Amino acid sequence: MRFFLPSWVVEYRRDWLGGDVSAGLTVGVMLIPQGMAYAMLAGLPPVHGLYAATLPILAYALLGTSRQLAVGPVAMDSLLTAATLGALAVVGSENYLALAALLALLVGIVQLLAGVLRFGFVVDLLSRPIISGFTSAAAIIIGMSQLKHLLGIDTGNSAYVHELLLATLREVDNINWLAVGVGGLGIALIIAAKRIDPRIPGPLLAVMAGILLTWGLGLTDYGLRIVGGIPGGLPPLALPALGWEEVRQLIPAALTISLVGFMESIAVAKAVRNRHADYELDANREMLGLGAANVAVAVVRGYPVTGGFSRTAVNDQSGAKSGLAGIISAGVIVLTLLFLTPLFYYLPNAILAAIILVAVAKLINPGEAKRLWRVDRADFWMLVVTFFATLIVGIQLGIGIGVVLSVGVHLYRSMRPHLAVLGRIPGTDNFRNVARFPHLQRVPGTLIVRFDGPLYFANLTYFQQQLRQRIEEEPGLDAVVINAEGIGSLDSSALYELEQFVAEQRDRGVKVRFAGVIGPVRDRLKRAGLTETIGQENFFVDVASAVAANRPTDYALQSNE
Amino acid sequence: MRFFLPSWVVEYRRDWLGGDVSAGLTVGVMLIPQGMAYAMLAGLPPVHGLYAATLPILAYALLGTSRQLAVGPVAMDSLLTAATLGALAVVGSENYLALAALLALLVGIVQLLAGVLRFGFVVDLLSRPIISGFTSAAAIIIGMSQLKHLLGIDTGNSAYVHELLLATLREVDNINWLAVGVGGLGIALIIAAKRIDPRIPGPLLAVMAGILLTWGLGLTDYGLRIVGGIPGGLPPLALPALGWEEVRQLIPAALTISLVGFMESIAVAKAVRNRHADYELDANREMLGLGAANVAVAVVRGYPVTGGFSRTAVNDQSGAKSGLAGIISAGVIVLTLLFLTPLFYYLPNAILAAIILVAVAKLINPGEAKRLWRVDRADFWMLVVTFFATLIVGIQLGIGIGVVLSVGVHLYRSMRPHLAVLGRIPGTDNFRNVARFPHLQRVPGTLIVRFDGPLYFANLTYFQQQLRQRIEEEPGLDAVVINAEGIGSLDSSALYELEQFVAEQRDRGVKVRFAGVIGPVRDRLKRAGLTETIGQENFFVDVASAVAANRPTDYALQSNE
Repeated sequence: MRFFLPSWVVEYRRDWLGGDVSAGLTVGVMLIPQGMAYAMLAGLPPVHGLYAATLPILAYALLGTSRQLAVGPVAMDSLLTAATLGALAVVGSENYLALAALLALLVGIVQLLAGVLRFGFVVDLLSRPIISGFTSAAAIIIGMSQLKHLLGIDTGNSAYVHELLLATLREVDNINWLAVGVGGLGIALIIAAKRIDPRIPGPLLAVMAGILLTWGLGLTDYGLRIVGGIPGGLPPLALPALGWEEVRQLIPAALTISLVGFMESIAVAKAVRNRHADYELDANREMLGLGAANVAVAVVRGYPVTGGFSRTAVNDQSGAKSGLAGIISAGVIVLTLLFLTPLFYYLPNAILAAIILVAVAKLINPGEAKRLWRVDRADFWMLVVTFFATLIVGIQLGIGIGVVLSVGVHLYRSMRPHLAVLGRIPGTDNFRNVARFPHLQRVPGTLIVRFDGPLYFANLTYFQQQLRQRIEEEPGLDAVVINAEGIGSLDSSALYELEQFVAEQRDRGVKVRFAGVIGPVRDRLKRAGLTETIGQENFFVDVASAVAANRPTDYALQSNE
Repeated sequence: MRFFLPSWVVEYRRDWLGGDVSAGLTVGVMLIPQGMAYAMLAGLPPVHGLYAATLPILAYALLGTSRQLAVGPVAMDSLLTAATLGALAVVGSENYLALAALLALLVGIVQLLAGVLRFGFVVDLLSRPIISGFTSAAAIIIGMSQLKHLLGIDTGNSAYVHELLLATLREVDNINWLAVGVGGLGIALIIAAKRIDPRIPGPLLAVMAGILLTWGLGLTDYGLRIVGGIPGGLPPLALPALGWEEVRQLIPAALTISLVGFMESIAVAKAVRNRHADYELDANREMLGLGAANVAVAVVRGYPVTGGFSRTAVNDQSGAKSGLAGIISAGVIVLTLLFLTPLFYYLPNAILAAIILVAVAKLINPGEAKRLWRVDRADFWMLVVTFFATLIVGIQLGIGIGVVLSVGVHLYRSMRPHLAVLGRIPGTDNFRNVARFPHLQRVPGTLIVRFDGPLYFANLTYFQQQLRQRIEEEPGLDAVVINAEGIGSLDSSALYELEQFVAEQRDRGVKVRFAGVIGPVRDRLKRAGLTETIGQENFFVDVASAVAANRPTDYALQSNE
C-alpha cells in the first residue's frame, strides 16, 4: 500500500501543516484570476481555466515528485493551445472546447508514454539560448494577442506577430479608451502591489477593483467588455470524443506542448528542489505526474496544463512543504466554482489582459542576449535566430529550428576539437600548451600533443590531418606522445584509424605513445586488440613518464573487466 | 600563369614519365570494359561509359589534388543513377540519356558549390559502420540487378532487392543457359587471371574471349544478347537541356550522389596519398576537381563519375606519378572511340555483367560486422540497420537513415559522458578512478571527480545530477575537486549552471576547486567573469595541487588573450 502512496503522504509531519495551508490558500487565490486570464488567452471561456485548476492538481500531487510545484494553466501552454486550435475551429465554439480537451488528453498520453519509456532526457536538448530566444518571442506574441482586450478592439486570433500588428493598426480607429483606462489601472495596481510587498495578491486586487468600478459606474453602458455570466458548479466529467482525423491534426502540437510544458515545469521544479534537500526529483516521474495531470484536465473539459513559474515560486515562499498545499489550492477553486462565480459577472476582459501582460512582460529578457554577446558569440546567434524564427515562422517551428540549430552547432564544434602541442613547465612534471606559455620547454625529438574531445567518426579526419601536419613540420622526430586524458571516448571508426595511424608512423620510424588513457577507452582498445598492435610498452600513466619512456606502471593498462 | 596550372605540371620531373605512360596505358585498357559495363549498370548504352572516361579525366587532372586518383564511371554512382532515373524515364531512351547528363551536371554544380563553400567536411559524417553497411547492401543490389544479363532474362529495372528477386523467380523458366555459360566463363577468367598475376587485365581478356566465342560459334543464333552496334567517333558536345521540373526531381539524388561519390573518391585518394609524401591532398579542392569532372561528363552525354577504388589502386601500383597518367588513359579511350568500336559488336552482355559481379562481390564485407560485434556493439547495430534499411527502403534513404542514426547515437553518448571518482596512486601525484583500482588512496574530506567530455547544454543535467549524488553520498565534505582535463569545451549554458552550482555548494560549506582546466575553457570562464565568481584561488594546475590547496601557479589561470 505504501508503494502506491506519494512519498510526502508517507513521510508527512504535523509541523508541515501550517505552511501547506498558508501556501495552499495563497496560491488558490492567485489561481482565480490567473486561471480565467490564461483560459481567455487560450481562446476558451474563462471558467475553463478554473476547471483546469481542480482535478489536474490532485493528479500531480499523487504522482509527481516535486513537493512545491504548482500545476495548472500557464501562459506558454495557453498560447500554444490558441495557436493550434485557432486554425481548426471557431474560438470559443463547442468544437473548440472539445478540441482543447482532446489536445490535453494527447499531451497527457505523450507525457505518460515518455515517462514510462524514460524519455525525460529529451528536454536536455533545449539549450539555454534556445529557451531564452523562444520565451522572449512567445512573450511578445502573447502580449500582442492580448492587446485587443486592452484596446477593446477585435483583431482575430493569430499567432503571428505581423498579422496581429496589421490587424491592430487596421482597427486603430475603434479603440475603446475606457478599456485602455481600466486595463492601464489594472497594470498599475498589479505593479504597485508587487513593489509595496510581493505578498500582496495584486492580480486579485485588480480583479476586485475592476469589478467594483464596472458595476458601480455602469461602465458596460460605454461599451466596456466583461466576462459576463459564468456557469456555476463543478465541471461535468467526460472524456473527449476521439476522432482520428482530429487526433492526426493535433499530434504535432501535442508533441510540442508536451516538451515545452515539461521543460518549463522541470526547470522550476529543479530550482525549487535545490533549496530543499528532503526529497528527490525524478525527471521521468515528473513526466508521469504531468501526464496524469493532463489526462485529468481533459476529463474536466480544460486544456493543457503544466507546472507554472510564478505560482510555484509563491507556493514555495509561502511555506509549502508537500502536495497538500496544491490540494488546498484546488479546494479554493472548487469552492469558487460552487459559490462565487456570480461575483465575476462584471469582470472586465481588459483586467484579465492586464494580468497576462504583466506576467509575460518579465519573460522578455534582452539581458540574456547581451550576456551571450560577451560570453559566447555562437550561442548569441542561436538565441537571435530562434527569437526571429519563432516570431516569423511560428511558435512550433521556431523551437524546432532552435533545437536543430543548437544540436548542429554542437556537432560541428565536436568535429573540430582543440588540439595543443605541449611543453614542460620548467622544474615540474606538468605539461601545457606551448602556444600559450612562452617559457615552456619542448622535449627534443618528441612531439607531445593533447586532443580535447572524444575521438569519433566525425572528427577523425581533422585529428589525423592536424597530427600529420604537426609531425611533418618537425622532421627528425623519434616519438609522438598523445596525451589522451581529454579523449573521453572512442568509437569503432576511431579504433580503426588509430591502428592505421600508429602503423604508418612506425613505418616512418616514429614511435607513438599514449599517456593518461582513461579507463573506458583502455577497455575498448583492449577489446579491439589495439593494446597488442600498438604495444603495451607504449602506454603510460602520464605525459612525464611517456616522455621519459619509463616502463609503464600497471595503472596505465590495467582494467577491471 | 603558374597559379592556374596544377602543381604536378609545374613540378613535373622527366623521370616521372615512364611510370605515367605505363600506368596511363594500363588503366586505359581497364577502362574500356569497365566503362561499358558500368554504363550498362546505369541503364545507358555501353558507349556512354566510354564517353564518361574522356573529358572528365582531363577536368580532374587540371583541378584535383590527387596525382594517382583515376576518375571515371564507378559501380556505386552507376547504381544510384539507375535507381534515380529508372522511376523517371524508360531505360535507354533519349529522355533517359538527357536526364543522366542533367543529373551529372547537377552533381557537378553541387560539388563545385560544396568545394567553394568549404563543405568538404560533411563527408566526415559518414562513419565506417554506416559506409560498410551501405556498401554491402548496395553491392547486393548491384549484383541482383546484373543477374538478368547473366541469366539472359528480363527483370526490369528496380533498385529494390525483393522486387528483383521476385522478378527473377518469375522468369526462372526463361533462363538462357548459354548466357549463364558465357557469363560463368567470364567470371572464371577474371578470377583466374587475378590469381595468376594481378597485373593481367582479366576483364579485357574476358571481353576478348567473349567476342571471339560469340563471333566464332555464331552464339547470337541461340539467343545470346550482345552489345551490338556502337556508334564510332567522339561524343557530341552539348550541355543538357534544363527543365526546372526535372531539376527539382533530380536534386535529392544529386545531393546523395555528390556525397557518396565524394566519399568513395576521398577515401581512396587519402589511402594512396599516404604512400606518397610529395604532395598535399585538400578535401575542398578535391570537391572542386570532382565537380569539374561531373560538369565535363554532362557535356559529353555521360553520367555521374567519381574517383574509383580499383582503377586508382592499379594506377598507383603501375607507377602513376601525376595527372599525366590520367590524361593518357583518356587518350586510350579516345582512340578506342575513334577506331575500335566495331570490334565490340559481338560483345555479350553476360560478359559485362560478369565484370560487374566480380568487381562488387568484394564490396560485401561480413568481416566488418563480425569485428564490430566484438569491438563496439552499438556500431555493429548501426551497420546492421543501415544494411537492411538500404536493402529494404532503398539506396538513398538507407544512407540517410545511417547518418541520422550515427549522429543520434553520438549525441546520446555525449549526453552521458563518463564520470569517475578519483584517488591517489600511492606515493605519486597521479590520480585514478577508485572504482577500477582497489588500492588507491581517497583524500579525506575531499571528493575528486573527473568528467570525460565537453560540458554543454545537453549533458549539464546529467553532470549536475551525478555530481550532487556523489556529494550527498559523502556527508561532511570540505571540498570538491573537479579534474577538468577531460572537459574540452564549455558552452554558455554550462557557464551559467557551473556558476549556480559553485554558489550552491559554497552555501552548503563545500568549496569547489578546478584542476587542469585547459586553455580555451579558461578563456571562456574568464570572459564570462566566472574566474572572479568562483575565485582565482580555486584554480589549480593539477589535481595534486588542488588537493593540497597550494597557491595556484600562473599556469592555472594565465591565458594569452
